[in-house]
Amino acid sequence: MTDRDAVGTMAERFTATYRIETPRSAREAAEAMAGEQSASTFVDVEAETADLQERHGGDVVDVTEIGRAPEPTLPGATPEPGDVDEYVRAEVTLSLPLENVGVSVPNLRTAIAGNVFELQSLSGVRVLDVDVPPEYGEECPTPAFGVDGTRELIGVRDRPLIGTIIKPSVGLAPEETASLVETLVEAGVDFIKDDELIADPPYSPFEDRVEAVMSVINDHEAETGKKVMYAFNVTGDVEEMIHRHDVVRDAGGTCVMVSLNSVGLAAVRELRRHAELPIHGHRNGWGALSRCPQLGFEYTAYQKLWRLVGVDHLHVNGLENKFAESDESVIASARAVQDPIPGDDGALPVFSSGQWAKQAPATYERLGNADLLYLSGGGIMGHPGGPADGVAALKQGWEAATSGIPLEEYARDHEELRASMEAFGDDE
Amino acid sequence: MTDRDAVGTMAERFTATYRIETPRSAREAAEAMAGEQSASTFVDVEAETADLQERHGGDVVDVTEIGRAPEPTLPGATPEPGDVDEYVRAEVTLSLPLENVGVSVPNLRTAIAGNVFELQSLSGVRVLDVDVPPEYGEECPTPAFGVDGTRELIGVRDRPLIGTIIKPSVGLAPEETASLVETLVEAGVDFIKDDELIADPPYSPFEDRVEAVMSVINDHEAETGKKVMYAFNVTGDVEEMIHRHDVVRDAGGTCVMVSLNSVGLAAVRELRRHAELPIHGHRNGWGALSRCPQLGFEYTAYQKLWRLVGVDHLHVNGLENKFAESDESVIASARAVQDPIPGDDGALPVFSSGQWAKQAPATYERLGNADLLYLSGGGIMGHPGGPADGVAALKQGWEAATSGIPLEEYARDHEELRASMEAFGDDE
Repeated sequence: MTDRDAVGTMAERFTATYRIETPRSAREAAEAMAGEQSASTFVDVEAETADLQERHGGDVVDVTEIGRAPEPTLPGATPEPGDVDEYVRAEVTLSLPLENVGVSVPNLRTAIAGNVFELQSLSGVRVLDVDVPPEYGEECPTPAFGVDGTRELIGVRDRPLIGTIIKPSVGLAPEETASLVETLVEAGVDFIKDDELIADPPYSPFEDRVEAVMSVINDHEAETGKKVMYAFNVTGDVEEMIHRHDVVRDAGGTCVMVSLNSVGLAAVRELRRHAELPIHGHRNGWGALSRCPQLGFEYTAYQKLWRLVGVDHLHVNGLENKFAESDESVIASARAVQDPIPGDDGALPVFSSGQWAKQAPATYERLGNADLLYLSGGGIMGHPGGPADGVAALKQGWEAATSGIPLEEYARDHEELRASMEAFGDDE
Repeated sequence: MTDRDAVGTMAERFTATYRIETPRSAREAAEAMAGEQSASTFVDVEAETADLQERHGGDVVDVTEIGRAPEPTLPGATPEPGDVDEYVRAEVTLSLPLENVGVSVPNLRTAIAGNVFELQSLSGVRVLDVDVPPEYGEECPTPAFGVDGTRELIGVRDRPLIGTIIKPSVGLAPEETASLVETLVEAGVDFIKDDELIADPPYSPFEDRVEAVMSVINDHEAETGKKVMYAFNVTGDVEEMIHRHDVVRDAGGTCVMVSLNSVGLAAVRELRRHAELPIHGHRNGWGALSRCPQLGFEYTAYQKLWRLVGVDHLHVNGLENKFAESDESVIASARAVQDPIPGDDGALPVFSSGQWAKQAPATYERLGNADLLYLSGGGIMGHPGGPADGVAALKQGWEAATSGIPLEEYARDHEELRASMEAFGDDE
């Protein structure tokens, strides 16, 4: 499948940056990583010539010590004679020849995030970032919609997109979901998504749900001219996902959602090959890859892999969220999703988890723009004035934020915002 | 796609067992998990009725405290007023209605290993095991070959399968790989695999490699009657993997290898739908999901998901390996791979990483059988008498192990084994 003539264009390299912790010197540990992720074996074998090492070996581009720990974070790292008696933490950048992998996102993942996590010389290893050469932008099916395409489909350009999630997570029959959707579209939301726990369960068959929901959304469009975007959760086998995408498209729907970790990179790539709608990437399971600070992935690296296979929307949690993530991490994630990569000018960050108007000012101030999707569940359905007031309050909160007016001040002559602050403000 | 009539058969439940750590009481934390993974939201909403909770809610089946920690393992867990002042560790079993998900492995993964990793009420959360009802065995494309099918294809029934890995990991052109394969098949190996870092790179296009390698293997079969199994690394996009599988099959090959974490569950399922050859599952990247003991997955749970989508061979590392994993963990993993699950009587555990004859006795004693694939790289290529002596030494080591004869004793009249012990024995 790969043209051998392409070798000439493969002089490029990709780089990966890690935070490591090691009982060895940071340099020695970095060299072990570069070896494991390229040509080296543990035992020298005949065929492993210096020439091959020169052409295919990984290079250590940078090693910067950032601290020391008295105890190892992860078990299984074995000090050797002569090792330091503390555990050194460092940021390490490796460079690997593109020729080792070619333009393939799954194989890129193996090259930057494979056996390296199991090295005995490391008591911590986290992928912070990855940079791929322009070839990836040309060959990969990067996002087809992103921020602008999503705004275009919804018809909202001058403020953040306001969305919500169908709750309860499980158990609603299609007609019950559609009834809730009717309430929500009448309330003025731009976007609605399935919960990640509902895809095609027996109590809500996918096709029945699409038919019921799109009937409401299409009617609402006919009346108002506004097409609310509904992200139907197509998560499943590859052929199921492609079929479900077509069902959504044929019903006039404008978005499909996928649980990224549940299906994997290659399946999302295959969906993207067929997709004519934006792909809403749900990151459930992300905590397993990220919650130990010295292991796994930083979102900056992780989200790039998904954008390289064409995901348009990526969840980033939200400020003061109900999960374990810090605000710093949330903002770093959102910035990363907006940053250009080869082939993609920027994807749409999706804020959620305990969001209401309160977090709008800090979100805007720290992110510097409002090119985002802001999901609020209880903030809409739980508003004392009802869902329409909930949506109004969110829009008012964002008007205040983008105008630089304190919420309290803006609330004085915006009663829906004021009511939400009275209702939710003592959740603290 | 799902028949609504199937609801009647969905009275079954699946269960998931976790090790958790929490600042709350273990019971309270377990209930938060059951809620997050089923019908609950953070804010009560109108539609969430008691009836729906009854039908779709998660149940806490068991909570067993196993210890306490003075400090939280993972950041982000916030004690609340009244919480215990230590962090309780417990094993927790949850039960969820199959009706919530239906028979879908990607959606099962979301249900057992989704947002639960990010709960603020947990400072540790690791999936230990998952049990699915028999419906999964009927509907899922479980392994087509497993232990017996693999033995049949290779023609070896009375001892462990002895294999090796092509090294160096990257850089060999197809003819160089084939030349190494010639040495290895002549040396008597049963199985050879690509390194996970080589799939279809510019320097070794997949089709050229298959042609070169299978020419050697087919010639060897014509001469000796023995078909060595070569696991070609087909990792890539879905259509690439299926195409590569067909290339291997058409060339007379008998196995395809996939980097599981790099492609994901849905892509492996799609490959399995088409596959006529055993699927060799490489777990590179597994360390990111497992190396923090209070986060991620135990292999017992993880390997089941892959077997439910049809993986025949699963890597388990090896005793006294060169990576960070303990021997206890290796044996537990191998046992789990051999244990029956719905639809699969047992898959083939693949031992590797620094393996030579030395580890055979303990591996056999602790596992209780020799239904495994034993991969040795340096132990074969680095044997002082050459690769044929390396393979002979491995077979002798396993003869000793399965006969209950100490290696040292068996080595007295088995010179290849003796030579390997002299050469590698001071690696300690």
